[in-house]
Amino acid sequence: MTMQEKFRTIHYGIGAVGSEVLKVALQRQDIQVVGAIDTHPAKAGRELGEVLGLGRNLGINVSYDAEALLREISADVVVQATTSHMITVYPQLVQAVASEKNVITSCEELSYPWTGQAELARKLDRRAREAGVTVLGTGVNPGFVMDILPLVLTSPCQEVRSITVTRVVDTSTRRLQLQIKMGTGLSPTEFRFRVSDGSIGHVGLKESLFMIAETMGWQLDEVKESIEPILATRRWETGAFVVEKGRVAGVRQAAVAMAGNREAIRLDLQMSLGAENPHDSIVIDGKPPINLTIAGGIQGDQATAAIMVNLIPAVVKARPGLLTMRDLPFIPWWSARGWWKEVPDDQHLRVL
Amino acid sequence: MTMQEKFRTIHYGIGAVGSEVLKVALQRQDIQVVGAIDTHPAKAGRELGEVLGLGRNLGINVSYDAEALLREISADVVVQATTSHMITVYPQLVQAVASEKNVITSCEELSYPWTGQAELARKLDRRAREAGVTVLGTGVNPGFVMDILPLVLTSPCQEVRSITVTRVVDTSTRRLQLQIKMGTGLSPTEFRFRVSDGSIGHVGLKESLFMIAETMGWQLDEVKESIEPILATRRWETGAFVVEKGRVAGVRQAAVAMAGNREAIRLDLQMSLGAENPHDSIVIDGKPPINLTIAGGIQGDQATAAIMVNLIPAVVKARPGLLTMRDLPFIPWWSARGWWKEVPDDQHLRVL
Repeated sequence: MTMQEKFRTIHYGIGAVGSEVLKVALQRQDIQVVGAIDTHPAKAGRELGEVLGLGRNLGINVSYDAEALLREISADVVVQATTSHMITVYPQLVQAVASEKNVITSCEELSYPWTGQAELARKLDRRAREAGVTVLGTGVNPGFVMDILPLVLTSPCQEVRSITVTRVVDTSTRRLQLQIKMGTGLSPTEFRFRVSDGSIGHVGLKESLFMIAETMGWQLDEVKESIEPILATRRWETGAFVVEKGRVAGVRQAAVAMAGNREAIRLDLQMSLGAENPHDSIVIDGKPPINLTIAGGIQGDQATAAIMVNLIPAVVKARPGLLTMRDLPFIPWWSARGWWKEVPDDQHLRVL
Repeated sequence: MTMQEKFRTIHYGIGAVGSEVLKVALQRQDIQVVGAIDTHPAKAGRELGEVLGLGRNLGINVSYDAEALLREISADVVVQATTSHMITVYPQLVQAVASEKNVITSCEELSYPWTGQAELARKLDRRAREAGVTVLGTGVNPGFVMDILPLVLTSPCQEVRSITVTRVVDTSTRRLQLQIKMGTGLSPTEFRFRVSDGSIGHVGLKESLFMIAETMGWQLDEVKESIEPILATRRWETGAFVVEKGRVAGVRQAAVAMAGNREAIRLDLQMSLGAENPHDSIVIDGKPPINLTIAGGIQGDQATAAIMVNLIPAVVKARPGLLTMRDLPFIPWWSARGWWKEVPDDQHLRVL
């Protein structure tokens, strides 16, 4: 980062997540949005403020030509929010890295790619190091609730035997895209078909599981994954859907890691219309044991947009390479003031 | 740290906390206890295993002469657990730093000394930098539950208006020293006298409050502290005390930070015999809001011993100077594998 006062950001992907991220970034004093990329015909070429429905112009036209824009505009970070799968997003990440810009991506598989996408991860890591930039995948899940937060909670433990995380989300209060992704309104048969082609369900449970397992140093003998439909027990009308009783209201997914006969990690995710008692819980069977509940759960859309913007200072200042959240400091958004190098004496104190 | 396989530790203070820390350290494969210091006549000169009541010898005699031991024995970290106040512990810390050893201390005021003990903090920071070592104050409270954990939870927030942390501890299940420190068994009059001379009550609320306020960048207009006795509503018999109804069963303390008319931070701590519904809670009034509860609370004695030992790798590898927990990575105990510098490719992956 140069001595400029603000972090300059280019936003790659102005879909559901990307738009929320932009709205947060535009409110920040320390961030200047300098570019936007989207290839969707309804967005490319239009004014960014108009695309976001802000009712004002931002002086930024959405570009369809990522390569040209990345080459021409200088920026500290490319904030990337397009798809969930690394193989799809890889060429976009390489473009951004080639232009010598740091990257924060919401791509779920990037939250911990070192197991599921090891070869691509190594290639991307090498390119990032060569270019001297940092690439980080993050979000609230994966990226926080089901991986970093449980790992943070092990710091006061003498021993940890198992980690169980449960997240129950009521999708009736969430964005349409999430409802679609959870198979809302499908018949159970359609659901199974769409699961088999990978177009529905949450991506990231395995990534969270591997981040926990490999950080804990646990040798796993087996990893089991499951996905089941949750069927509507009554008729639902949402803004976009009418879901008859007996059709799909959402998804229940689990990823379980066995170490011998021990269930070392269980990640359980339920996302459905009207899910009862929405919450996040983290149970550490350890010494001491830790049994934590977040009432209502952390609101995913708001939180993912926030965490992506909050991590900008940390990513700009971190070492080059493909990082994951576990490489970052306790308070990444504070790290702009310097967590890994000398801090001038006068920055320690604030007159109260 | 040299290329040796284990972290070598010297333990300064073998009281309630120090003994627990030693018991945890002695179980770790990656730690070698190489020295112990205590000036108490019942401990100095005796064999460490005997002092700890292990029923076996460790080949280490407890030394009363800190300076000589620190000079003669090479070690990576001095784990220091003597008193709560920085002014008392300062000469001991300077001794350790002068011997070019990193320090982890349970001294509560060291958890965030930059406001309450700014001058001593600057001096210690300068000495640590000159000696090329790191000094860190930590524990479960202060150091985790009421400061770092709430700060970690702000990462997924777009806005934070206030942070409220409540910790309710049932001291009937805790160590005798803690019960004494909470005024257990005193009359209300004795309690007030002992509060005024600073010999009872929890130390660290202000430190937690200032760590939060200064990290959030909040300009405070007023900081209020209070301490009140909690009186026994029935007769209590513990292992050490008989507490008649109407006498002191524990303490309720609060530290509140005002920013204008806004209560920006409230830290509320209740520690008493038979406290109902022991728990830790963190409420962030923000976007999104976060409302977290740890059922039963995090067991303090076990957790403080664990966190002090778990932080050894991070403190050995961190930059020189007087650090606080907010300078450390999300998963400090993992940091031995390298969070701030290049990690060899082959360390990313673990064959499962």
